[in-house]
Amino acid sequence: MTAEDAQAAASVLVAADIRGISSHGVGRLWRYVAGLETGLMVNDAAPETCMETPMSLVVDAHGAMGAPVSVRTMKAVIDKASTIGAAFGCIRDSNHFGIAGYYAMMALNRDMIGIAMTNTAALGVPTFGREVRLGTNPLAFAAPADREKAFVLDMSTTVVTRGKIEVYNRLGKALPEGWAVDNTGASAHDAASFLHDTLHRIGGGILPLGGMGEEFGGHKGYGLAIMVDILCAVLAGAPFGADVVDTEASSARVSHFFGAIKIGAFREPSEFRRDMDAMLRNLRETAPATGEDRVWFAGEKEFEEERRHIESGIPILEKTYEQLCSIGDKYGIPPPPPM
Amino acid sequence: MTAEDAQAAASVLVAADIRGISSHGVGRLWRYVAGLETGLMVNDAAPETCMETPMSLVVDAHGAMGAPVSVRTMKAVIDKASTIGAAFGCIRDSNHFGIAGYYAMMALNRDMIGIAMTNTAALGVPTFGREVRLGTNPLAFAAPADREKAFVLDMSTTVVTRGKIEVYNRLGKALPEGWAVDNTGASAHDAASFLHDTLHRIGGGILPLGGMGEEFGGHKGYGLAIMVDILCAVLAGAPFGADVVDTEASSARVSHFFGAIKIGAFREPSEFRRDMDAMLRNLRETAPATGEDRVWFAGEKEFEEERRHIESGIPILEKTYEQLCSIGDKYGIPPPPPM
Repeated sequence: MTAEDAQAAASVLVAADIRGISSHGVGRLWRYVAGLETGLMVNDAAPETCMETPMSLVVDAHGAMGAPVSVRTMKAVIDKASTIGAAFGCIRDSNHFGIAGYYAMMALNRDMIGIAMTNTAALGVPTFGREVRLGTNPLAFAAPADREKAFVLDMSTTVVTRGKIEVYNRLGKALPEGWAVDNTGASAHDAASFLHDTLHRIGGGILPLGGMGEEFGGHKGYGLAIMVDILCAVLAGAPFGADVVDTEASSARVSHFFGAIKIGAFREPSEFRRDMDAMLRNLRETAPATGEDRVWFAGEKEFEEERRHIESGIPILEKTYEQLCSIGDKYGIPPPPPM
Repeated sequence: MTAEDAQAAASVLVAADIRGISSHGVGRLWRYVAGLETGLMVNDAAPETCMETPMSLVVDAHGAMGAPVSVRTMKAVIDKASTIGAAFGCIRDSNHFGIAGYYAMMALNRDMIGIAMTNTAALGVPTFGREVRLGTNPLAFAAPADREKAFVLDMSTTVVTRGKIEVYNRLGKALPEGWAVDNTGASAHDAASFLHDTLHRIGGGILPLGGMGEEFGGHKGYGLAIMVDILCAVLAGAPFGADVVDTEASSARVSHFFGAIKIGAFREPSEFRRDMDAMLRNLRETAPATGEDRVWFAGEKEFEEERRHIESGIPILEKTYEQLCSIGDKYGIPPPPPM
């Protein structure tokens, strides 16, 4: 890989750890390395722009690592938006791109609203179904503020991700009602058999945000997940739904969607940022429920983690440190000593 | 009102009834009439464009009825998008605009993706809070298909709307755990005291999509509701959050956001529509959970209602018919006889 591409991928992983989202941090490096070694991530792929207008861009990544092509595409989208007011880009035939919020946040210091989405390997079931038809399909939306940090929503559109179910499996805990369904479509309680049955596509899957049925709005999360798949994959002419498949050791070939909207096309950006400050403070100062300490706005916890980590370092799991060392050994890169 | 504006408002209300969304149909006419009579909806308001670029538009409705100014603004957004590829518009100081899906669907036969959102009177609480800070803030997203109808997501970003809690109140039923919180921030069970305490702003409110706390993703619905408020209100320079207030007889002064994205800027629209057909069929054909009949995609139930209603007429409640007759009496409009 070029130094620039390696740097982009490292930045996205480290940004996740800084923001306290360790599920998407350097602990993922071994999967990226495995992807490059097995050829699922194509080391020397040359991503190609197959469609371009002043406000749009469709890139075929030809199996490249997700983060570098995503950083370049979001930069192009932001540049287009700075000229024309709003722009959008799709990438097809890509790989895991890290945290969606990273790309959405690239728009912030340009006085733009940033948007990023990706489809993922199918793990989720439609409302009333028992077969996977959708990924955890995260969407991120970032809007700048002034003295406050920013509003940064970065969420999967399913109730939980597979990672959380794997944690319950390791702890031997029963899954909460409303997270997932088994191969009959009933609420899944046993994490081990859930993971087995979904891995082998026997049936069952994670529920969309809102949970089981329609009583708590599960059909809304289901709709949001499909919206993400339409913008990422159908708009780019890429595989969608159950055709997006990964394995334990590698990511699926996925598609992404990026957007930037220039605030100055609607109102004076400084006034927007001032109102965002008022909104975010107002949310933070909401009277908490009895027994709760306080209320956060989207992204605020992550900004607080970032501040703490910049002051005192980023903790990583011993297992992650060992993985990094073993990758370093293999490729002749001496690891820094543990703190 | 001009005949054109009256026609636009009537179209939006009737479209809701045709699609089986009677909560937003002609049963709302009395509230619109009350709004016009009390002056909260300004009969002869002249909506004014206060900002415009080739891809953007901000309209101050000056308190006009919501639907007519929304139809005109979405038309302008679509026209801009057909030239430039994507366009967005905000309306501030508006009123209830009916179903968000109506405006998103206006883009469909232009081979565009349509987007519509609105903020609403504050009824929802942030995750871990016990005071209202957000509306039910619906968002709609429509994407065209070919032989299939279309994908039309039209959802509030809270678990439920106030209307549903009012139904439980009339039936004397306890509220399900995870719909709403009382004035201490604990799960609300009694619909009557919930409605009293929220009406008088004593505390409590409806939960965001995903429900209580973070275990089922309530913080995601909370983030989506704020995203809608940012795009509708902060981008337009309008009131947001708890400053959007209505009364039993009238709507709040609300803000809207509209968008259109031209599919042809990304790929050949006929290929997009063909893939949408494949996606929607695939979702419909998902194996259902044991005990369930089938799986739907977003908007499909409403298209089926539409087909049934066009064949055999739209049923309306006797109470709604009586309301329409009494409005007709007052303004000298003879009602059609009941079928």
